[in-house]
Amino acid sequence: MSPATTRPTDSEDAAAAARAFLADFRSMSTFGATTGGGVDRQAGTAADGQTRNWFRGLVEGHGFEVRYDAVGNQFALLEIAPGAPYVAMGSHLDSQPLGGRFDGAYGVLAAAHAAIRLHDTPATAPAPVFNIAVINWFNEEGCRFKPSLMGSAVFTGKLPVEQVLATTDPHGTTVREALASIGTVGDFTLDVAAYLEIHIEQGRSLEDHGLTIGLVESTWGANKYEFVVHGEQAHTGATVIADRHDALLGASLLVAAARDIADEFSTDEHAVITSCGEFTVFPNSPVVVASRVDLLVDLRSTDAEVLATADAELHRRIAVIEERAAVSVERGAEHIWASKAYDSSGLELATASAKKLGLAHGTVRTLAGHDSTNMKDIVPTIMLFVPSVEGISHNEKELTSDEDMLAGVDLLTDLLGRVVGGEFVASNQNRN
Amino acid sequence: MSPATTRPTDSEDAAAAARAFLADFRSMSTFGATTGGGVDRQAGTAADGQTRNWFRGLVEGHGFEVRYDAVGNQFALLEIAPGAPYVAMGSHLDSQPLGGRFDGAYGVLAAAHAAIRLHDTPATAPAPVFNIAVINWFNEEGCRFKPSLMGSAVFTGKLPVEQVLATTDPHGTTVREALASIGTVGDFTLDVAAYLEIHIEQGRSLEDHGLTIGLVESTWGANKYEFVVHGEQAHTGATVIADRHDALLGASLLVAAARDIADEFSTDEHAVITSCGEFTVFPNSPVVVASRVDLLVDLRSTDAEVLATADAELHRRIAVIEERAAVSVERGAEHIWASKAYDSSGLELATASAKKLGLAHGTVRTLAGHDSTNMKDIVPTIMLFVPSVEGISHNEKELTSDEDMLAGVDLLTDLLGRVVGGEFVASNQNRN
Repeated sequence: MSPATTRPTDSEDAAAAARAFLADFRSMSTFGATTGGGVDRQAGTAADGQTRNWFRGLVEGHGFEVRYDAVGNQFALLEIAPGAPYVAMGSHLDSQPLGGRFDGAYGVLAAAHAAIRLHDTPATAPAPVFNIAVINWFNEEGCRFKPSLMGSAVFTGKLPVEQVLATTDPHGTTVREALASIGTVGDFTLDVAAYLEIHIEQGRSLEDHGLTIGLVESTWGANKYEFVVHGEQAHTGATVIADRHDALLGASLLVAAARDIADEFSTDEHAVITSCGEFTVFPNSPVVVASRVDLLVDLRSTDAEVLATADAELHRRIAVIEERAAVSVERGAEHIWASKAYDSSGLELATASAKKLGLAHGTVRTLAGHDSTNMKDIVPTIMLFVPSVEGISHNEKELTSDEDMLAGVDLLTDLLGRVVGGEFVASNQNRN
Repeated sequence: MSPATTRPTDSEDAAAAARAFLADFRSMSTFGATTGGGVDRQAGTAADGQTRNWFRGLVEGHGFEVRYDAVGNQFALLEIAPGAPYVAMGSHLDSQPLGGRFDGAYGVLAAAHAAIRLHDTPATAPAPVFNIAVINWFNEEGCRFKPSLMGSAVFTGKLPVEQVLATTDPHGTTVREALASIGTVGDFTLDVAAYLEIHIEQGRSLEDHGLTIGLVESTWGANKYEFVVHGEQAHTGATVIADRHDALLGASLLVAAARDIADEFSTDEHAVITSCGEFTVFPNSPVVVASRVDLLVDLRSTDAEVLATADAELHRRIAVIEERAAVSVERGAEHIWASKAYDSSGLELATASAKKLGLAHGTVRTLAGHDSTNMKDIVPTIMLFVPSVEGISHNEKELTSDEDMLAGVDLLTDLLGRVVGGEFVASNQNRN
């Protein structure tokens, strides 16, 4: 069970393990499959439930026990050090509508295969000091139920469980009802010592630099706002321009302002990324001036001061937009994530594994949020990326090559052996 | 039945007729009533069906026969000149979602009461040369099923009936299915000699000029476009700005451009009105760059040349937007209405009625489309307005005073007497 034995040394065993991973990946990708080559497995839907049950069957076949907590996080447990805390690995099986096959799902399956490989390897090393858990976090995507990273936020104490269970989707279905409908809910809790996550990059920096493995050194800071633009419903034909309070115009100007701000900072060392991902118009009828638009605007930067400057500029522009469109802009819920570094000793350990396996690697930052963003605040955490072809993500065309996927599983397997063996955190440091 | 007897001369009769109208108006407004004081009776819904059945009961109680055509236009017939063509009056009982109580519904009820009053008046005049029909046009609003003015477009040969019956709402329900579900469909056709319509103004020009009656002299020209902005779905966080093809940004810039164009022409004698009334984002998820936005843009002007100039400017700006947002803008269906005058002899006749009744009146143009916009292309047509308080329309707060509503019924009754008596069109001119 030492690092030297965590990867099949026999080339036939290695080839069989690779084939097994790719076969499981193809099976998994059939759940919620879309005609465009992606998947639609929004959290708590039937397709999400099917994928969870398929995953349960897969890992139970390899000796794992499967448990659920109160918000539907799925824990696949492999007890190899009775009574010890767990090294957890995970990601998410839910997807965006018309999402890709790799986002989240790759990380869950890679974690399961890393654990299986480690478990199946003849134990020639010291006994493990931790148990292993593979976690499929509930609702990482946040498209059906907001916010994103929901399951890991509850697990890490950032969101109250009752608030999450009462959260509704656009049709009024609660998380509680959705979880009951797919039946994957329980009252399990887990004692975690460390957390590892592997994910597709969803950007193009690895590809641009010819790297196979990204070692994530920090998250970007993000300010996410839910805005409501209030106008006045009116007839599009009969109402003269001067009498209009056009919520759609106000919201459109806000979208344009967000992009202008990103462009203003594009020459700065600490670039700002701005986005509007959701934009819903009421009543959205052909001949009616909109009374209201709900939209999300987010600003991201690696530098806290730059982010604050961009944020102030956004709010200055909102005042101008309110005047221009004769509307009022209400700021609703906000989600603020500070830029934060991952554990530096974890980076060193992952670097050692990548070097040993001869994988081209480098450090990267993540603009996207991941469940590790939450987990790193409560336990030592390592986050790894594999390349996304052309950086395309949240898209049916999302792609990571078989070769890169397998390199990631190899790396995670080696790293897991080290962490389970006590090289990342000592067994007596981690009871909390 | 001469003009002199079309209005009860006895003040008690007149007061009773006024009370009857207002009582019926209040009853009608309960169908699809919203908590905000408006109505939601989108075409072919249960609420639309209930209103139609209520209207049928009302007019049958006064001796009308009710028939339907293949697209659900509802005809209430009063045969007072056996074998003769019909003078038709009408408007629509369907509404916008969260629409007002007056838009359309006022005109249908005013027409029915004008016919009832004329019919109940002792016949001291020459026999009528036309029969009377009150028409409730199907789907004037065009919010559930596009385009607007659907029923009158089929009646006037502008839209094929089969195409209309196959038109779907956003949930995939066809007009055919919606009509079958409310049961108000048939195979009736009507021989129309002339058409009268009264409607709330939905603007503020009457109120601003202290007028009770608007005599509509022309429609504005309108170019209505259905645009599809095509981008590329991507992750809002991980995708750098340079790699984005953001359909929401492109569509937002189009909304802003449309308003800019209206402002550019605001000092011109022939002002341009621009609007975007429908704007639907795909996939509309919080952390996804939009792949597509469907939106409607319309430009209106009384002057054909000005409208053409504004239209060219819109299309010039679209090319700039495609570059700026790295998207493509596809122009789908378009609906072009040329500015067109109403029959001048009808204006003179309505002026005579208004003078006789002592009602403050003036000529106006309509920016909004009405079923009379279609009808005026096949028969001599008169269009009348009563004031809208503060010009508010397509809004639950839409309001026309009882006094103004009753003045409109009085005027329509007097005018109907003149038209049925042959003062607008001669009985031998109208068989087509």
